[in-house]
Amino acid sequence: MSTADVAVIMGSQSDWETMRHAAETLDALGIAHDCRIVSAHRTPDRMYAFAKSAKADGFKVIIAGAGGAAHLPGMVAALTPLPVFGVPVQSKALSGLDSLYSIVQMPAGIPVGTLAIGVAGATNAALLAAAVLAISDPALAERLDAWRAARTDAVAERPV
Amino acid sequence: MSTADVAVIMGSQSDWETMRHAAETLDALGIAHDCRIVSAHRTPDRMYAFAKSAKADGFKVIIAGAGGAAHLPGMVAALTPLPVFGVPVQSKALSGLDSLYSIVQMPAGIPVGTLAIGVAGATNAALLAAAVLAISDPALAERLDAWRAARTDAVAERPV
Amino acid sequence: MSTADVAVIMGSQSDWETMRHAAETLDALGIAHDCRIVSAHRTPDRMYAFAKSAKADGFKVIIAGAGGAAHLPGMVAALTPLPVFGVPVQSKALSGLDSLYSIVQMPAGIPVGTLAIGVAGATNAALLAAAVLAISDPALAERLDAWRAARTDAVAERPV
Amino acid sequence: MSTADVAVIMGSQSDWETMRHAAETLDALGIAHDCRIVSAHRTPDRMYAFAKSAKADGFKVIIAGAGGAAHLPGMVAALTPLPVFGVPVQSKALSGLDSLYSIVQMPAGIPVGTLAIGVAGATNAALLAAAVLAISDPALAERLDAWRAARTDAVAERPV
Amino acid sequence: MSTADVAVIMGSQSDWETMRHAAETLDALGIAHDCRIVSAHRTPDRMYAFAKSAKADGFKVIIAGAGGAAHLPGMVAALTPLPVFGVPVQSKALSGLDSLYSIVQMPAGIPVGTLAIGVAGATNAALLAAAVLAISDPALAERLDAWRAARTDAVAERPV
Amino acid sequence: MSTADVAVIMGSQSDWETMRHAAETLDALGIAHDCRIVSAHRTPDRMYAFAKSAKADGFKVIIAGAGGAAHLPGMVAALTPLPVFGVPVQSKALSGLDSLYSIVQMPAGIPVGTLAIGVAGATNAALLAAAVLAISDPALAERLDAWRAARTDAVAERPV
Amino acid sequence: MSTADVAVIMGSQSDWETMRHAAETLDALGIAHDCRIVSAHRTPDRMYAFAKSAKADGFKVIIAGAGGAAHLPGMVAALTPLPVFGVPVQSKALSGLDSLYSIVQMPAGIPVGTLAIGVAGATNAALLAAAVLAISDPALAERLDAWRAARTDAVAERPV
Amino acid sequence: MSTADVAVIMGSQSDWETMRHAAETLDALGIAHDCRIVSAHRTPDRMYAFAKSAKADGFKVIIAGAGGAAHLPGMVAALTPLPVFGVPVQSKALSGLDSLYSIVQMPAGIPVGTLAIGVAGATNAALLAAAVLAISDPALAERLDAWRAARTDAVAERPV
Repeated sequence: MSTADVAVIMGSQSDWETMRHAAETLDALGIAHDCRIVSAHRTPDRMYAFAKSAKADGFKVIIAGAGGAAHLPGMVAALTPLPVFGVPVQSKALSGLDSLYSIVQMPAGIPVGTLAIGVAGATNAALLAAAVLAISDPALAERLDAWRAARTDAVAERPV
Repeated sequence: MSTADVAVIMGSQSDWETMRHAAETLDALGIAHDCRIVSAHRTPDRMYAFAKSAKADGFKVIIAGAGGAAHLPGMVAALTPLPVFGVPVQSKALSGLDSLYSIVQMPAGIPVGTLAIGVAGATNAALLAAAVLAISDPALAERLDAWRAARTDAVAERPV
Repeated sequence: MSTADVAVIMGSQSDWETMRHAAETLDALGIAHDCRIVSAHRTPDRMYAFAKSAKADGFKVIIAGAGGAAHLPGMVAALTPLPVFGVPVQSKALSGLDSLYSIVQMPAGIPVGTLAIGVAGATNAALLAAAVLAISDPALAERLDAWRAARTDAVAERPV
Repeated sequence: MSTADVAVIMGSQSDWETMRHAAETLDALGIAHDCRIVSAHRTPDRMYAFAKSAKADGFKVIIAGAGGAAHLPGMVAALTPLPVFGVPVQSKALSGLDSLYSIVQMPAGIPVGTLAIGVAGATNAALLAAAVLAISDPALAERLDAWRAARTDAVAERPV
Repeated sequence: MSTADVAVIMGSQSDWETMRHAAETLDALGIAHDCRIVSAHRTPDRMYAFAKSAKADGFKVIIAGAGGAAHLPGMVAALTPLPVFGVPVQSKALSGLDSLYSIVQMPAGIPVGTLAIGVAGATNAALLAAAVLAISDPALAERLDAWRAARTDAVAERPV
Repeated sequence: MSTADVAVIMGSQSDWETMRHAAETLDALGIAHDCRIVSAHRTPDRMYAFAKSAKADGFKVIIAGAGGAAHLPGMVAALTPLPVFGVPVQSKALSGLDSLYSIVQMPAGIPVGTLAIGVAGATNAALLAAAVLAISDPALAERLDAWRAARTDAVAERPV
Repeated sequence: MSTADVAVIMGSQSDWETMRHAAETLDALGIAHDCRIVSAHRTPDRMYAFAKSAKADGFKVIIAGAGGAAHLPGMVAALTPLPVFGVPVQSKALSGLDSLYSIVQMPAGIPVGTLAIGVAGATNAALLAAAVLAISDPALAERLDAWRAARTDAVAERPV
Repeated sequence: MSTADVAVIMGSQSDWETMRHAAETLDALGIAHDCRIVSAHRTPDRMYAFAKSAKADGFKVIIAGAGGAAHLPGMVAALTPLPVFGVPVQSKALSGLDSLYSIVQMPAGIPVGTLAIGVAGATNAALLAAAVLAISDPALAERLDAWRAARTDAVAERPV
């Protein structure tokens, strides 16, 4: 049983450059997480095993990043009752438009809460997971509020 | 203070044809919810007041549907720490592509968990809200499992 | 063990209106086939079981149709060594562009031979399966040649 | 009360590289302006305060630049009766197409006069503001005519 | 010399179904206007004459609607110093995407303030013209405020 | 009166990098041509004058390149009975898709024969002009045949 | 040897609904033409034979319409030195965007002068062919001028 | 008569950078193949000859790569009964979207099994050809299984 609340999974090693922003944001918010490579296409058995046991393993939220024909978030969502947030990784030819459509256009019945293409989406998946966990964790809610307030304060009044 | 866990908001009366599928799915799962029209553009003060007090009002999750330059989900997400799930309503000229981009492409810092364009997205926003609430509500988790199992059972083996 | 060479699978009952054109074309060419509803999202276990045993069950080619975030062809391709041909079913909001990207943009390692969006694609998936089977089946090669020749002959010289 | 006729606002510091072309063009035309960072998402309170008081503060025209899910121009337009001109800043993954759709596809009732993606749009927002102010300012009209004439004269007859 | 402040021009008779919403909104706000068919492609001389004399004719703002390769707004903007607002009329094959790109992507130097595709854009072009004229017309500013307030009041609290 | 058969015009100096491929191809085919900068937006009077007199000036074919809201080819086509071939110059944000739509989607009545985006299109505009002039110029037809044959011969049998 | 100057070819009988507008416009201009169904995919030999002999058969210009993966215009252009004008027929799923890209994006060396998607494109292909033939046929040039003048005269001054 | 089972053809020398990944993958799997440049547009006669005799020459599967208005895969498919797999080469302006549409949107009757844009597609075309040949070649089936297993094993558990 994992002691992490959030699983951050991704389809390949190359997605880490994007997905590490999810991990770093979870770190900044003090949320225990576990990062794994789980390829829907190259390791489908690992994906099935991971998704089927994710809830029993103690995870509460899953963040899944993938690019191109990005099946990982949707397939994991089909195999677990946990909330799944998807990050479309920017792809080479189609700039992540293929990733976005493959993740967001899920049929009625199996939701994937989809974030923006690329680094912004990875960061935001962590923040959304934090908001979800904060519903029943007032201390985390305070840390999240502080994180957001700090970002508001960091916006200068003038560009020059 | 609301006794509803989920607020279902939408930008205009015409979005109801789509968003009622969120409400009906929440009903089917026994989740108390409150449906309101809150237009980012025509009633920005109402939106501001709603979003600023949503957490204090007792809501735990917000589902927001909008079409075209769909600013409602993102603006509400900027004004509340609660998790916000966005539904891109299918628009006339661009078939919801404008709604999708306006909702999903949020900058790092303010996440909106975005669902599919149209009715599937509205249904799935409710299911995602249910999955989130089920993290700390085992009875709801059971009802959600049953709902999903029923849908699995409903898939026939053969098309003809 | 199936006596059919080709499995025609689809994600939902509503895909049958498109995919029956694959079945009818296989019929016309005298190719034994088996049509099933196998939803990647609603029946992932059925999909897993089907794909894992497809080769042992005697199938030689798989035709898979799906719409929206169309994961069925790619996931089946990840679970079987058989050749998989994918048919992007035309979707409501994005006209099948989401289906197309989700099916064709597979990562290196797991191919899906993708056909056109909609009915033309379903028909052509059957013809491509026929061409594949005809490599080692001269009688089928002759039937396929005859089918094609009949279509060539059916093209009138003038439009009016 | 501002002595500037035009407010040039933008969603983040990084937009300045684009929006400074608006400021420089206003400078060239002798139009007093005020440049500020007002983020719809990170500083929504600042945005509300700015937009609500913009007219009383003496501004006559607002130029707003933003990228991605670019809500700033439309939200400001919802909160002020002043004319708002929007500049879609070129985004990383979608090249500003998301910015464009988010700004231009406003619903009936709240207009944003939208310019081209990127630097050309920033320059043109300033020129459009100038044309608007020139309606009741003949001296500015003359300066604008001169600016345009100079550009016409600068077009060579032949490319080599 | 025209007694109208706003010229509403369009590329063809078929654009009237869209552009009459601009005319009706101007009527509702008590703004004198003049509606004309001026085709960039079929009546280039009429367009040239209209645009060259528009300011001398007493117009203050031009609203131009066109579809497909929509050159009318940009060409008029090249021929007059008046502010030009463009309405992309929804086209048959490309749903107005061609109209939008042709109108909004003007090069630095010649701005067209572009509104949404179709009826919403036509309505908003009138509102934007009103906002521009209201800068130096307090009575119109009051009528515009009243128009907007009435629309805000018309938004119901609940969808059902 | 020009002694050139083909006018190669472009909207700005920066288009020359693309359009010189048209000029070089015309040179290679021995076709007299004249290259000019004629901006629809910055020099509309020059454009009117050029297009109105192009036929009387002795030109037989016009090649026009432009990018973004590319009005030059279509406006020239509206002002001359000569055949006009349009080259969509690759633009920064939208990669020439805006140029392509603005040039090709002309309404019934005013044709622009449109070539591919960028350098290939510029080269092909020259070849198409050559094919048109070759209808009544057998010597040119022979040079064009030779040019094409040389290109065919230049295609190697194998890539390595 | 044909007595027609223009060949109007199309990929299938269903394209006639679009391409008859080319034929009717040629009729209106008194240009002899010949309409044929020549499918690149179903009758490649007929296409090859047609294109190879088109010039010897007396044709001067070829108009080719096709939809989807529209190879007909480009393949004919590869097989004949005559100028080829392509008409992208509006397709079902992708509204003719696939037809447009398949026709217009020809590589350097083999041009196809491409017209607008659908009926406008078919009409304009005929007008462009007329403009080309009119270079050496003053009587046709006069008829074309008259046709265009009649269309200009038919544009009303006002929309209502 | 060729001793190769697979023909790898491409439209130009520049496609080799992409298509060599097909050749290398076939090499890795021990499949005899033959690489050739066959341009649909510049060497149509060579293409006709190649495609017409491909089956008699002993080929069993054809892999065809092309970019832009990519006619090669579809035209070869029209001229041979062999299965044809198409690789959309990434193009400059439209990033391979034009290549993809030109290859995948074939009309009913002539299938092209289309792979992903670029290098992934080239690799996968080889794998799909292998899967097809493995239907009647158990030794190849074993090599393909081993290749896939090695790739599964190569996926690390964790990204860092």
